[in-house]
Amino acid sequence: KELALTPSVVSFDRAKMEDLLKRRFFYDQSFAIYGGITGQYDFGPMGCALKSNILSLWRQYFALEEQMLEVDCSILTPEPVLKASGHVERFADLMVKDVKTGECFRLDHLIKQALEKLCKAKEATAELKAECEDIIIKLDGYNKQELADILSKFNIKSPLTGNDLTEPIEFNLMFATQIGPTGLVKGFLRPETAQGIFVNFKRLLEFNQGKLPFAVAQIGNSFRNEISPRSGLIRVREFTMAEIEHFCDPTQKDYPKFVNVKQEVMTLYSACNQMDGKSAQQLSIGEAVGSSLVANETLGYYMARIQQFLLAIGIKPECLRFRQHMSNEMAHYACDCWDAEILTSYGWVECVGCADRSAYDLGQHTSATGVRLVAEKRLPAPKTIEVSEIVPNKQALGKTFKKEAKTITEALAKLTLEEINQVEEQLTNKGHYKLTLTDGSAHQLEKDTIQVKRSSKTIHVEEFIPSVVEPSFGIGRIMYALLEHNFQCRDGDEQRCYFTLPPIISPLKCSILPLSNNADFQPFTQQLSSSLTKAELSHKVDDSSGSIGRRYARTDEIAIPYGITVDFDTLKTPHTVTLRDRDSMKQVRVGVEEVVGVVKDLATAKVKWEDILQKYPIFEQQEATK
Amino acid sequence: KELALTPSVVSFDRAKMEDLLKRRFFYDQSFAIYGGITGQYDFGPMGCALKSNILSLWRQYFALEEQMLEVDCSILTPEPVLKASGHVERFADLMVKDVKTGECFRLDHLIKQALEKLCKAKEATAELKAECEDIIIKLDGYNKQELADILSKFNIKSPLTGNDLTEPIEFNLMFATQIGPTGLVKGFLRPETAQGIFVNFKRLLEFNQGKLPFAVAQIGNSFRNEISPRSGLIRVREFTMAEIEHFCDPTQKDYPKFVNVKQEVMTLYSACNQMDGKSAQQLSIGEAVGSSLVANETLGYYMARIQQFLLAIGIKPECLRFRQHMSNEMAHYACDCWDAEILTSYGWVECVGCADRSAYDLGQHTSATGVRLVAEKRLPAPKTIEVSEIVPNKQALGKTFKKEAKTITEALAKLTLEEINQVEEQLTNKGHYKLTLTDGSAHQLEKDTIQVKRSSKTIHVEEFIPSVVEPSFGIGRIMYALLEHNFQCRDGDEQRCYFTLPPIISPLKCSILPLSNNADFQPFTQQLSSSLTKAELSHKVDDSSGSIGRRYARTDEIAIPYGITVDFDTLKTPHTVTLRDRDSMKQVRVGVEEVVGVVKDLATAKVKWEDILQKYPIFEQQEATK
Repeated sequence: KELALTPSVVSFDRAKMEDLLKRRFFYDQSFAIYGGITGQYDFGPMGCALKSNILSLWRQYFALEEQMLEVDCSILTPEPVLKASGHVERFADLMVKDVKTGECFRLDHLIKQALEKLCKAKEATAELKAECEDIIIKLDGYNKQELADILSKFNIKSPLTGNDLTEPIEFNLMFATQIGPTGLVKGFLRPETAQGIFVNFKRLLEFNQGKLPFAVAQIGNSFRNEISPRSGLIRVREFTMAEIEHFCDPTQKDYPKFVNVKQEVMTLYSACNQMDGKSAQQLSIGEAVGSSLVANETLGYYMARIQQFLLAIGIKPECLRFRQHMSNEMAHYACDCWDAEILTSYGWVECVGCADRSAYDLGQHTSATGVRLVAEKRLPAPKTIEVSEIVPNKQALGKTFKKEAKTITEALAKLTLEEINQVEEQLTNKGHYKLTLTDGSAHQLEKDTIQVKRSSKTIHVEEFIPSVVEPSFGIGRIMYALLEHNFQCRDGDEQRCYFTLPPIISPLKCSILPLSNNADFQPFTQQLSSSLTKAELSHKVDDSSGSIGRRYARTDEIAIPYGITVDFDTLKTPHTVTLRDRDSMKQVRVGVEEVVGVVKDLATAKVKWEDILQKYPIFEQQEATK
Repeated sequence: KELALTPSVVSFDRAKMEDLLKRRFFYDQSFAIYGGITGQYDFGPMGCALKSNILSLWRQYFALEEQMLEVDCSILTPEPVLKASGHVERFADLMVKDVKTGECFRLDHLIKQALEKLCKAKEATAELKAECEDIIIKLDGYNKQELADILSKFNIKSPLTGNDLTEPIEFNLMFATQIGPTGLVKGFLRPETAQGIFVNFKRLLEFNQGKLPFAVAQIGNSFRNEISPRSGLIRVREFTMAEIEHFCDPTQKDYPKFVNVKQEVMTLYSACNQMDGKSAQQLSIGEAVGSSLVANETLGYYMARIQQFLLAIGIKPECLRFRQHMSNEMAHYACDCWDAEILTSYGWVECVGCADRSAYDLGQHTSATGVRLVAEKRLPAPKTIEVSEIVPNKQALGKTFKKEAKTITEALAKLTLEEINQVEEQLTNKGHYKLTLTDGSAHQLEKDTIQVKRSSKTIHVEEFIPSVVEPSFGIGRIMYALLEHNFQCRDGDEQRCYFTLPPIISPLKCSILPLSNNADFQPFTQQLSSSLTKAELSHKVDDSSGSIGRRYARTDEIAIPYGITVDFDTLKTPHTVTLRDRDSMKQVRVGVEEVVGVVKDLATAKVKWEDILQKYPIFEQQEATK
């Protein structure tokens, strides 16, 4: 269905890339010497530098550009917060267990695998195949009972042992722990960074001097106890997210800077097109918002900026699309959602979610805590409203209820208008009111302890719960896709693989290679290294004994975009070195004094390699001959 | 005792500073709307930016400068890793519980508090006072039984209820959780980032092409379930660390760049001086290493660099000392340790540990996994050694022991030379050898299943376990000390407080303040803001209606070092603005086109404010009169 806008499948050898990533320790399984834990990865020097360069650029593209408020909140989160957010109840996947071994399987993955196997069997009829394919397509939309029915209809067993499986069980994906020494305070590792922002809303609004809209950014780790993680960095138990919560007036979702991006052409795969079996379509974000395909300018602006960011770091444009969530797959908090999906050898992978969470979270935390997470706006004209409140007679209440008087007073303050009307009616008719607290206990309040007061009030401002638009970046997934899109092998030499990562995010910017271990090269090598350090350019000196070609190949493997070679010509005045470009393998001859400045300009994208080729003499010597 | 080198106590109003930090949301208690959790803090926009600027500078000062390998490892750590590292058994604090309420108290804090109270009582004799003071000084050195004795001798009760207390209980400070859906894999949140580096040692050594020394850096969060955290950011349950593990040959701890720092004068408080009741002493790190007060150049180099870094971010030199651990307070893994301690209103606080962990960790993980975490070095001359090994007869073993044959073979491979001698003796004498496995099971191996083979081998390299020197930075503590050291109030106005943070780490670099809401100012404000963004300078536009003086005060509170004001003179050609310095409150008049470049140079410490004062005309108008 989506073929029209899907790029032709490129030949990509995942095993070859993974071998390189492992061999040069971009990342690898955590605790491997202890047998390892699935779904956990450690980033080695190159992976860590790549990640931190991506995050720096993210800060520039989003936090700095929009003057967002960046925060850094706690990971350990007490249970009541995640109860209010809905995660304790609903953040779960379905699993089944092998009745004999206890082995756990994620239910949707298990069904998909079993049905795919059925389809491939020789005896599979066309009818069966069609049925299975239909189920696989709709898998995300089925509920627990429907999945249980599929399990029993196809008599699915454990793929490892052939044993029977239990009924589907809901498994909450949060890691639980206890906070403090008593063992009484239950907490979880946050499953997303967003809640830290919501619970700080009041402080942040105040920091922004009460004004909306404003956006808050947070980069940090989140944790999900995946049932059976696989697919490398795509599905892990511990991951870095970069999230933005943009708070705005629900009636004002326009965005002043939208005009700067409205020409941006996007590949949009709407919910309608998905349901109708149509393909994604290409149109400018201006058109998409104009025709209400994308709900508003704020959402549209972020989608366009997400695209610009992803292309800047090196994602291939033809492998990027925005897919709208269908209503049955929406997370419990979202009311509209477009995912930036990137095509990899695992298929289309959700890498950035862009959800309109509306007022859901702030409303939930307000209900749970009684702290009103709201903003105010000036009314066009002052308005007179009727106010009803219960005025407690503190002395009388205190006398009757002692320590409980405070709880009662607080409960009374929370009553709705309708409830206040009931209080008044009961006080008039019965002479008392029976108050039920949240813990179930009931208290009879006599007429002399409380009083219903009604008054009118002129108000100039109106309170409202802001809407939230949330772009949420999965950094590990983006990194993985980036590596796939930039993996290359040299023509005619399948053993010489490299990554064409843009210099701005490359782990190291430059290598320094003395042609041989001739002692005369050393002062130049050292001076270049310390100049690069001063210029804040990460680099690697490789003075090992391999041939220069072999050493270039090693630096190519870790995506170093530029290489400086110190050779015998360097010793002559004026002192010069060669500067080599990773992608074209072309070299120029540059003065020793100049070369660090040239690399700085290249690494910060101030000049392009083409400009350098124009400016400096080409150096023609073949790599292999050195 | 330490008075000689302790700065005179400055008048510092902690409550006033904390009020400002809270009001402008540098940081505040996490989940406060839910009642909060002690020992957890969220960093608001200013705290987060300050922290990330400190970390950027840290990366420059350490990772980039020394070309360290930076990694990013998992937080969730399976139990066996932390068993091997000693944390499961020994990473604990002693606590006592109120026998009735179950309230928990950290034992050393409780005793200190109780004895201090005793000393203050009217009826306290000089003898009692002396005894209590002596105990308090030695508190870190007592063991469990000694502390229990003190508890009963002074009949210490719960300070909250007066109830009896339990015997001391060891409480492990790690947060426990389960990894995966089965509930069978126990894990902990890492209590330090170091272990992630140790378990990756082989990969890192290989990345470094097998060469020593090299250093690995990691920035990340760690978690400690403190018994009763207090003292704000000083003692928290979740904190960011920046750790370095420097791996080197234990016989070669010289450091080529030591020559660059040897003049650095440090305040050193040796273990001897502490025990002898002497004060700290000031001497150059060159002298300290020369006289073996500091064990080696590597340790000395890092100590000097730690000092340079702390001073660069704004720690006061007179409030910084390096204190050597006494043998009874050393962590279980350390063999020597110097802490960078910073004087705050809480007293001297350990902010950076600089420990020689020797071969402890690599040795422990080698024993636990059988994976040899070692490096090799070339011998001065080849050496012939006798090799003894047990050669299993795989077929015979397999036939007898079936599945267990593998375990047995592995156990045989681990036998020491002495054990191999015993095997040979028993095989000769009895015709069989009884092998006991680690799980306690014993297996009788007949003569035909194994054979002891002895040979001689010429070796050119020698294996050894590298030593580790570990500088470990507590970022939150450093931040707190930094804020204290830089907190100021304007002369004569106790309400106008500000932070003198160095521009290089200030959360925001610049403010833009239009003098009034005159529409003509807007294009200038907007243009300046977008130029600052392009120059990657974080800034804040404050176009609210307050007086300019009031708005300056607001930007001072959040440590913004420079302020640009757009006023009526700006509208005239040539267009100019005022540029104001936070600390001196002096202003100059600078061209609109130039000012962003000037701020960039100031913010990156390329020029000083004094230079700017020389170059541009002073602007004399008083803040208050605007």
